[in-house]
Amino acid sequence: MSESVPRISIRDAAAHAGATVEIAGWLYNLRRSGKICFPLLRDGTGIIQCVAVKNQLDEALFEALKDLTQESSLIVRGRIRAEHRAPGGYELDVEGAEILQRVPESDPYPITPKEHGVDFLMDHRHLWLRSRRQHAILGVRHEVIRAIRDYFDSNGFTLVDTPIFTPAACEGTTTLFEVDYFEGEKVYLTQSGQLYNEANAMAFGKVYCFGPTFRAEKSKTRRHLTEFWMVEPEMAYANLEDVKRVAEELIVFVTGRVLERRRTELTELERDISKLEAIRAPFPRISYDEAVERLKQKGSEITWGGDFGGADETLLSEDYDRPVMVDRYPAQVKAFYFQPDAQRPEVVLGVDVLAPEGYGEIVGGGQRIHDLDLLLRRLEEHKLPREAFEWYLDLRKYGSVPHAGFGMGVERFVAWMCGLEHIRETIAYPRMIYRTRP
Amino acid sequence: MSESVPRISIRDAAAHAGATVEIAGWLYNLRRSGKICFPLLRDGTGIIQCVAVKNQLDEALFEALKDLTQESSLIVRGRIRAEHRAPGGYELDVEGAEILQRVPESDPYPITPKEHGVDFLMDHRHLWLRSRRQHAILGVRHEVIRAIRDYFDSNGFTLVDTPIFTPAACEGTTTLFEVDYFEGEKVYLTQSGQLYNEANAMAFGKVYCFGPTFRAEKSKTRRHLTEFWMVEPEMAYANLEDVKRVAEELIVFVTGRVLERRRTELTELERDISKLEAIRAPFPRISYDEAVERLKQKGSEITWGGDFGGADETLLSEDYDRPVMVDRYPAQVKAFYFQPDAQRPEVVLGVDVLAPEGYGEIVGGGQRIHDLDLLLRRLEEHKLPREAFEWYLDLRKYGSVPHAGFGMGVERFVAWMCGLEHIRETIAYPRMIYRTRP
Repeated sequence: MSESVPRISIRDAAAHAGATVEIAGWLYNLRRSGKICFPLLRDGTGIIQCVAVKNQLDEALFEALKDLTQESSLIVRGRIRAEHRAPGGYELDVEGAEILQRVPESDPYPITPKEHGVDFLMDHRHLWLRSRRQHAILGVRHEVIRAIRDYFDSNGFTLVDTPIFTPAACEGTTTLFEVDYFEGEKVYLTQSGQLYNEANAMAFGKVYCFGPTFRAEKSKTRRHLTEFWMVEPEMAYANLEDVKRVAEELIVFVTGRVLERRRTELTELERDISKLEAIRAPFPRISYDEAVERLKQKGSEITWGGDFGGADETLLSEDYDRPVMVDRYPAQVKAFYFQPDAQRPEVVLGVDVLAPEGYGEIVGGGQRIHDLDLLLRRLEEHKLPREAFEWYLDLRKYGSVPHAGFGMGVERFVAWMCGLEHIRETIAYPRMIYRTRP
Repeated sequence: MSESVPRISIRDAAAHAGATVEIAGWLYNLRRSGKICFPLLRDGTGIIQCVAVKNQLDEALFEALKDLTQESSLIVRGRIRAEHRAPGGYELDVEGAEILQRVPESDPYPITPKEHGVDFLMDHRHLWLRSRRQHAILGVRHEVIRAIRDYFDSNGFTLVDTPIFTPAACEGTTTLFEVDYFEGEKVYLTQSGQLYNEANAMAFGKVYCFGPTFRAEKSKTRRHLTEFWMVEPEMAYANLEDVKRVAEELIVFVTGRVLERRRTELTELERDISKLEAIRAPFPRISYDEAVERLKQKGSEITWGGDFGGADETLLSEDYDRPVMVDRYPAQVKAFYFQPDAQRPEVVLGVDVLAPEGYGEIVGGGQRIHDLDLLLRRLEEHKLPREAFEWYLDLRKYGSVPHAGFGMGVERFVAWMCGLEHIRETIAYPRMIYRTRP
């Protein structure tokens, strides 16, 4: 708009206090008061209140600003002024403006400050993302992802992306999405990079993969998406205790980062920050046996040998102010590749980490079978075709070592950080059984 | 193995010179010389030569080490000693060892130092990753991905993951993979996050997505994978010049990081490092018109209005020691959403960046149409169903602004950094028309 005036982002307003700047954005809201109006401008990095005074502006411009409609696009020029009553601490005194597009009254921006139903908002997800609350959630998501990567990159893990197209199933085929490959060939979308991770750990020592994973589950719960992002580390020469240690370190590190860098977003979401400040090592560690006993005392119907449901997880976590680690599950509730406990072969060296406040399982992992014969027996017991796993068996033939790892789902973690009821708001374009648009 | 001896990674050997340590890994190679043998140990972070002397060790242990087979797993204890003739600068004098699994001669590790065919190696990709060369390539890949994310995270871009399951096609349906969703519904795997990125840029100002993308192309060239990773930034209030500036900055930044942190890997790959050191701003900028003229002079059959083939890209890039930016392509060779040049509506404000040394297009992008009526005309001209694009049209109704962005494919970038003939080695588990395993 003007050569000499710097274009700034709203988040950098403080650094330009007293200076005349240009901000390019959209009208978030507007208050009028006779000869003065207060356009609230958003630019994707923040929101700032502008002050437009009639007798200081070109009359046509003032009238245009005063009548501006929600989400109209405009570039404002003016002076940044400290204002302790303003939410961000600064306001902008308007000296000029260019309106790029005025949204007409005849076809107004569909999302108004009034209440809308969830289906309506989800149908307008491409616009809904502009609202303060969705903005805050996705800001937290960005920080969580960045912190996860920083943790692994700084701790000697090599990122090795595992494939999305996979020929075989990791844990059965009923929840797999099938893809038409070329000439009638069928492939499946990955549910987990773990099997590949195990090969990569034998090559790199410590690895992680981090990408989208897919589950064709017909569940319609508030904890399920058909497409979600997962980070999965895997370590050679490692055991169940290493998994617990790394998972604990990771969770503490990521939570710390969110608290340090996304306090504004947490406040916007009215998150009880004290709940997150309590997330410190050491996390409580209990066995599956102990967990079952506690659940029975709390009135759950669970019996030894069964898997926990969502309600059980909530009951277990309510005793703690931080995540609780439950280990040594019965072999029959875990996948075929879990290493059995040498002292008690009916349980396996697996661990789940349950978030507090009823957010359920955020980490699942453990030690893998490294003995070839035992793995062969397990494939048979689970009626899995040996042929599809030949390459996986190779890892037990050529320099097999004890190894272990885990998976952590991004969306559940973000839901917990943000204190959300439903996981659907933790990803920009959620995919659920009845939701594939926009 | 031993409580008091620290377990270290080979890459940290220097910090432990003179100390007794433990290293857990695999036998990479072995030399014998009478009463002394030299196991070459790899642990995923490096390779170190160990020195085992017969009369300093338990006899059975010495014999076991001397007869050890490739890729057997073992933990070695010994003293780190500086040795300027050793590749890493250090050796380990063996004091003890525990062999976890000896690979038997009857079923030896299949990848030997002799030459193997590509199909054989690709069938054994889960093991091939252990070799020095593959290890180096994936190390460079890790650094490229980390540097890309650091660049965007440090320059005000918000990461907003775009969906993998998409209802509509970005650029036609012929190269789309179809997925069976629930109850007979069909969805498609994303080819690009761009359309969603545009919505996200209107919410966050500057965004990027970074994930796997899919193309069901029947091409069997050395530049094509069916599954590959792509980073795509998008900026509101931005134009073609902004795209060039950001792409140039990004490429210079990432190349600098690879040179700074992965020199060992580049040396292992026998990469001509001077070629990468030449990658500095400013990159040459030419128009499509100029490119066509040059190609004609160089003997290409191209005529104005045609798209460049791989051979044309190579011819164009051979004049430069750094990437060349070619802009303002004929509208008919670019997608429907490109903004036309106001002065010459037959060309669009798109730019491709061609890597030197014949590595082809590494970046493609430009300015998008922000006018609703023009976009509607384009949808019609391209025979695209308006209904599927209603949400995309919304972005032109509610506060439309000029905006621009680009995509950069990770695998081509890594191939260029590493100086590779074929793109298939730049990803752990490449997927091509005839390759979906392991």
